[in-house]
Amino acid sequence: MPIFAPLQNDTFLRALQRQPTAYTPVWLMRQAGRYLPEYRATRQRAGSFLGLAKNPDYATEVTLQPIDRYPLDAAILFSDILTVPDAMGLGLYFVDGEGPKFERTLRDEQSVMALRAPDLSNLQYVFDAVTQIRRELNGRVPLIGFSGSPWTLACYMVEGGGSDDYRTVKSMLYQRPDLMHRILETNAQAVAAYLNAQIEAGAQAVMIFDSWGGALADGAYQQFSLAYMKQVMGQLKRSHDGQPIPAICFTKGGGLWLEQIAAIGCDAVGLDWTVNLARARALVGDQVALQGNLDPVVLFAGAAQIEAEVAKALASFGAPGANSGHVFNLGHGISQYTPPEAVATMVEAVHALSRTMRRAA
Amino acid sequence: MPIFAPLQNDTFLRALQRQPTAYTPVWLMRQAGRYLPEYRATRQRAGSFLGLAKNPDYATEVTLQPIDRYPLDAAILFSDILTVPDAMGLGLYFVDGEGPKFERTLRDEQSVMALRAPDLSNLQYVFDAVTQIRRELNGRVPLIGFSGSPWTLACYMVEGGGSDDYRTVKSMLYQRPDLMHRILETNAQAVAAYLNAQIEAGAQAVMIFDSWGGALADGAYQQFSLAYMKQVMGQLKRSHDGQPIPAICFTKGGGLWLEQIAAIGCDAVGLDWTVNLARARALVGDQVALQGNLDPVVLFAGAAQIEAEVAKALASFGAPGANSGHVFNLGHGISQYTPPEAVATMVEAVHALSRTMRRAA
Repeated sequence: MPIFAPLQNDTFLRALQRQPTAYTPVWLMRQAGRYLPEYRATRQRAGSFLGLAKNPDYATEVTLQPIDRYPLDAAILFSDILTVPDAMGLGLYFVDGEGPKFERTLRDEQSVMALRAPDLSNLQYVFDAVTQIRRELNGRVPLIGFSGSPWTLACYMVEGGGSDDYRTVKSMLYQRPDLMHRILETNAQAVAAYLNAQIEAGAQAVMIFDSWGGALADGAYQQFSLAYMKQVMGQLKRSHDGQPIPAICFTKGGGLWLEQIAAIGCDAVGLDWTVNLARARALVGDQVALQGNLDPVVLFAGAAQIEAEVAKALASFGAPGANSGHVFNLGHGISQYTPPEAVATMVEAVHALSRTMRRAA
Repeated sequence: MPIFAPLQNDTFLRALQRQPTAYTPVWLMRQAGRYLPEYRATRQRAGSFLGLAKNPDYATEVTLQPIDRYPLDAAILFSDILTVPDAMGLGLYFVDGEGPKFERTLRDEQSVMALRAPDLSNLQYVFDAVTQIRRELNGRVPLIGFSGSPWTLACYMVEGGGSDDYRTVKSMLYQRPDLMHRILETNAQAVAAYLNAQIEAGAQAVMIFDSWGGALADGAYQQFSLAYMKQVMGQLKRSHDGQPIPAICFTKGGGLWLEQIAAIGCDAVGLDWTVNLARARALVGDQVALQGNLDPVVLFAGAAQIEAEVAKALASFGAPGANSGHVFNLGHGISQYTPPEAVATMVEAVHALSRTMRRAA
């Protein structure tokens, strides 16, 4: 087991566990990304997106870039959401400007029945990156590991890429629920093993991104997405090396199902910007921490408007109680067109305003 | 004032007014459309989409096609959602496979200040179509008029077309809320006048499509979309020629704001498939009727699965009470790839199962 430097800033981990903090911690989904000129430079040296994501040195470099630039309270592993199906042999590739694609898709009974959870050695480059990042962070902030949700991975595996309406995967769901459940069962096993290996490699918290759960109908969501995230939660290591490992679940567009998500055993629920934080907090009480949920487009406005929107979000969540946690974040990944100085303004505003609120409380 | 044949099937209008009905009425968003071979034939004769939409003869022909094919309980005017900004002089055009575009967009103070509600004579082709359709329907089912919401129109007017993230229009909202309000104020006036002219021409119910309200953050939605739909509601003719004219509001992705939408003075709220009908009914009580909300992808499954999903939706809404109305619909427009026979199965199932439920109640 690798030995790491002691953690100097545990604000994020404390908030996830609904323990008192001196201020509201903040990080950004996709914080290591194209809006940063230093990221674009590394990406160019790596030659391709997969060349970047699959090389632990490059992955470490870009994961640390936003931590060096801003006083963020957590780092998140730089990786792709589709590493797991790639390791299952589906053949991930990228076409410039078109997003991820798979060479092989799951469209018939034969290909579904042949699907197996991946040999974790195919994902060693991810675990190596986790350990190397954790080392180079040197205890500055905690490191978040992550995975796509079983359903979100299945969307890509059946569609073969992104989609406007997820017609192919949802058709399979309605026509052949048995095949759909088979894929999801395999994915859930794979996601749990993948996250546990990240935890063993050094991840101090984990997050499941259910980016396409919001495409599902009520009823189908519970059966085909939520049930499998719950299964992953049940199989996760919840502590490692004497430390608790908090888990965050985020279904984009899942605000209507908040209470049900909060009940699957996660420590925190991610919220997109359509959710009212005050109402969300009232609904979940002390059951889970909440993460979110500024509209990423706010970062295209001026400093005064950014500060005003940060203040609104903090006020909506309200004064942190003894057992309530708020992790500030965007409601979705940061846009590649975001001016980097807007992020500095936002992070500064979250820290300063939340300290003031605690003094006033 | 034109004289029309008496209405033979008022089930849809009664359900919108939460009056008892013998069965649950059903129609489909985009029911006159590309999934029908007869529509594609008319579209080819018309030469272009706008050639079809702007010609009252063609618009009448395609509006009646699904009514001739299926026992639907309402017809909806065939038109484009962007007729109003086109009539404001923005220059609507279509590029094959790319959706609608505008030649001129509203991106600066000068263009916003120059914006005016359109001369309704520029939209006479729409009102002519309404009168002609109502005549040719000959009282078989009621005719629904419609408009985009002030916010949804603004999205296209500022972006100049569709968008993944509505970054341009939302940036204006955060940076220059004064300009955004100015556009929305003009749009609200235009939408109210447009719908009132459709009512005078023969529309027996109206629907506002807020297709992009769900892209807004909580807080922004209430200020920039809902407030202007409320303004339209306040200016609508609520009866004409001695008959009440029910109004339906539909924000796609607006399930979290259901109670607030129900309070703006509409008769019914449209719901997408992420909303639980039982929960929605419990939340709004007898305040409004509900319209929806089958996942359009269900229509890609076999007859047995379609019937099962229809049964689930009807059971979720529950037995219609004395003052509650349910209009069956999809949760969004029907896909162009839908097999036409699936629609027949769905409509038949809604009628048969809902009659049985009423007998059992």
